[in-house]
Amino acid sequence: MEQSLSYDNRIDSESSDQVVNPWEVSAKDGGKIDYDKLIDRFGCKRLDESLIDRVERLTGRQPHKFLRRGVFFAHRDFNEILDAYESGERFYLYTGRGPSSEALHLGHLIPFMFTKYLQEAFKVPLVIQLTDDEKFMWKNLTVEESERLARENARDIIACGFDVTKTFIFSDFDHVGGAFYKNMVKVSKCVTLNKAKGIFGFSGEDHIGKLSFPAVQAAPSFPSSFPHLFPGMDKLRCLIPCAIDQDPYFRMTRDVAPRLGYSKPALIESSFFPALQAKNGKMSASDPNSAIYVTDTAKDIKNKINKAKSGGHQFSVVQHDLGADLEKDIPFKYLSVFLEDDSELELIRKQYGEKEGIMQTGDVKKRVTEILTEIVERHRRARAAVTDEMVEAFMAVRPLPSMFE
Amino acid sequence: MEQSLSYDNRIDSESSDQVVNPWEVSAKDGGKIDYDKLIDRFGCKRLDESLIDRVERLTGRQPHKFLRRGVFFAHRDFNEILDAYESGERFYLYTGRGPSSEALHLGHLIPFMFTKYLQEAFKVPLVIQLTDDEKFMWKNLTVEESERLARENARDIIACGFDVTKTFIFSDFDHVGGAFYKNMVKVSKCVTLNKAKGIFGFSGEDHIGKLSFPAVQAAPSFPSSFPHLFPGMDKLRCLIPCAIDQDPYFRMTRDVAPRLGYSKPALIESSFFPALQAKNGKMSASDPNSAIYVTDTAKDIKNKINKAKSGGHQFSVVQHDLGADLEKDIPFKYLSVFLEDDSELELIRKQYGEKEGIMQTGDVKKRVTEILTEIVERHRRARAAVTDEMVEAFMAVRPLPSMFE
Repeated sequence: MEQSLSYDNRIDSESSDQVVNPWEVSAKDGGKIDYDKLIDRFGCKRLDESLIDRVERLTGRQPHKFLRRGVFFAHRDFNEILDAYESGERFYLYTGRGPSSEALHLGHLIPFMFTKYLQEAFKVPLVIQLTDDEKFMWKNLTVEESERLARENARDIIACGFDVTKTFIFSDFDHVGGAFYKNMVKVSKCVTLNKAKGIFGFSGEDHIGKLSFPAVQAAPSFPSSFPHLFPGMDKLRCLIPCAIDQDPYFRMTRDVAPRLGYSKPALIESSFFPALQAKNGKMSASDPNSAIYVTDTAKDIKNKINKAKSGGHQFSVVQHDLGADLEKDIPFKYLSVFLEDDSELELIRKQYGEKEGIMQTGDVKKRVTEILTEIVERHRRARAAVTDEMVEAFMAVRPLPSMFE
Repeated sequence: MEQSLSYDNRIDSESSDQVVNPWEVSAKDGGKIDYDKLIDRFGCKRLDESLIDRVERLTGRQPHKFLRRGVFFAHRDFNEILDAYESGERFYLYTGRGPSSEALHLGHLIPFMFTKYLQEAFKVPLVIQLTDDEKFMWKNLTVEESERLARENARDIIACGFDVTKTFIFSDFDHVGGAFYKNMVKVSKCVTLNKAKGIFGFSGEDHIGKLSFPAVQAAPSFPSSFPHLFPGMDKLRCLIPCAIDQDPYFRMTRDVAPRLGYSKPALIESSFFPALQAKNGKMSASDPNSAIYVTDTAKDIKNKINKAKSGGHQFSVVQHDLGADLEKDIPFKYLSVFLEDDSELELIRKQYGEKEGIMQTGDVKKRVTEILTEIVERHRRARAAVTDEMVEAFMAVRPLPSMFE
């Protein structure tokens, strides 16, 4: 699972068709991702205002900015999860990360920040799958290196502030087996090779490990995969916050669930996080300048934001006359994701994006640099405080007695 | 793994081509399995007299009758295992069973009888894989039923007399995970979908569980799949006694092994065990009259053998003039597998198979009924003595300190 928000580098992609699957995201010629089209093609639903209002009412707190700003913008059965919650039923959260790199970038943190909010707002248990097996199979990594990256990434995840009494983090290499493996095999039995090829686009030259993996990502959707957490709770619903490129896995999982007598997992799905230079076709992981990493210094962040693609105008007169093109302005996009204050964001939208505003590109870059530096430095301090013992504690196979409190 | 000798029901098969793979065995039009052709096509080797002599010399005991009679007739690298053994190196044995039925038939017992002999003769550890996952995926069984059958079959296997200090029996549903799962994933990464289709004949309508399974059967070939048994012994060679229809799994495994830095497993391969009525195209599991089961009473055995296909002649004058056609005589084939005494077998071959002999079909049937009844009753007594505690003891994840003694 690579539930993280990828830095979306494909706004100016040169490929002619829009391709979105768990391993590739690319937009049509010179365009950007058409999320409406994606929702149509995938068959998930828009997360509309009425649902967000309902979240506010049910949790008694302001919805997370990622909901208010449409970062999480699509869902499957999230309404049913809310129905269940309203009627006193419980559910659990499942998210994960494919540990392909040592240093996370900001896009990677988004789903964890959002999941932490969901855990707190709804008071529910959370399982986090580290798909070291996936990364071994897709990347040029040894098993040992994949495992090491999984533990390193666990530190970053823990640093986001999850509650150890409600959270179970597991590596596939460690945890697959027993009840979990049984669910993997049950899922596999329901999916034909033709169907898997249709969903994931596998070819004859792909190795069979890739064919085996979708069942690994499906298994945590079912409470019976975790007998130490959910004994006798086979009907417990599962909610999965993820980026929309993960939808194919869970479309398959939802297709299979009723045939196994299980509930379909519900989904809440985000858009992609834009890369700093929206031109480059490369993925962020292979281009350190396309993303802000949690290991970047304040100086790195300042330099990267200064070089980021802007929708503003170089000359202040022109900027004043026209306003910036916010659709093309990466610093503004970052602000709209990370700035907490809605009214400040609205002010910047007007003073920078509309004509006759008083803000210049440099002002926006300065503000986003402040915000990101603060987030990155806070994360770095939190990560440094994560001890080996804390990692063990989160990853221990154990019951979570207060998981719904 | 269905390492058991299938009852070979396909001597008079009507299919036009010889098909042998782990799920199907069928001979060419009206013919019988052409083992020479099979050896050529698979690329394994004949187990010749000189190798059998070497086994006798190295172990200081008479080779098992299944070696003397050619029941085990093919191999891969068995000569290298003997080289290694001669120079003081160690190896381990791996065999298994796909638990598809509650009652075993005699064909199922053959590989275990032979493996027990190998364990005793070479003083080596043994791992026995119960592929409950395979049976769940291929057959119409629930996970629970597959697991129950695995434990029931474990009783039959233990009843064959294995040494609990040298033998580890495991179910895939229980044991897959950790080190074992890592090896599964490593194997999967080395096999393309096209290659798997070529080896196993999978089609687009097969489910992906089938694509995942070959890695499960490959993993026990590598000592690192069992860290509790073989810590620091990654170079330990593995010898696999099995029926030749399992060869595709291990061809794949041997192909992959060097790419993972592992030794190729060696194989010693048997022919198929003939069904009682050599005409019927059905597999034995679905036709209780095609096989002798370990649950059959003495009366059942007598009735089944009386109805078995004979190569003898009904009238004693004709039988005396022509002798029986031993190639078509199932009772004689059973005798050649199960009768311990070579000289008695030779006597029957002459007195029944050659002209002017004194034996009739009835005499041979009477003798084979005696032999099989004794084997089945001995097995039933041994199985009744297998307690739950013994099953637990064999299946416990534990070191085997005296495994090479």
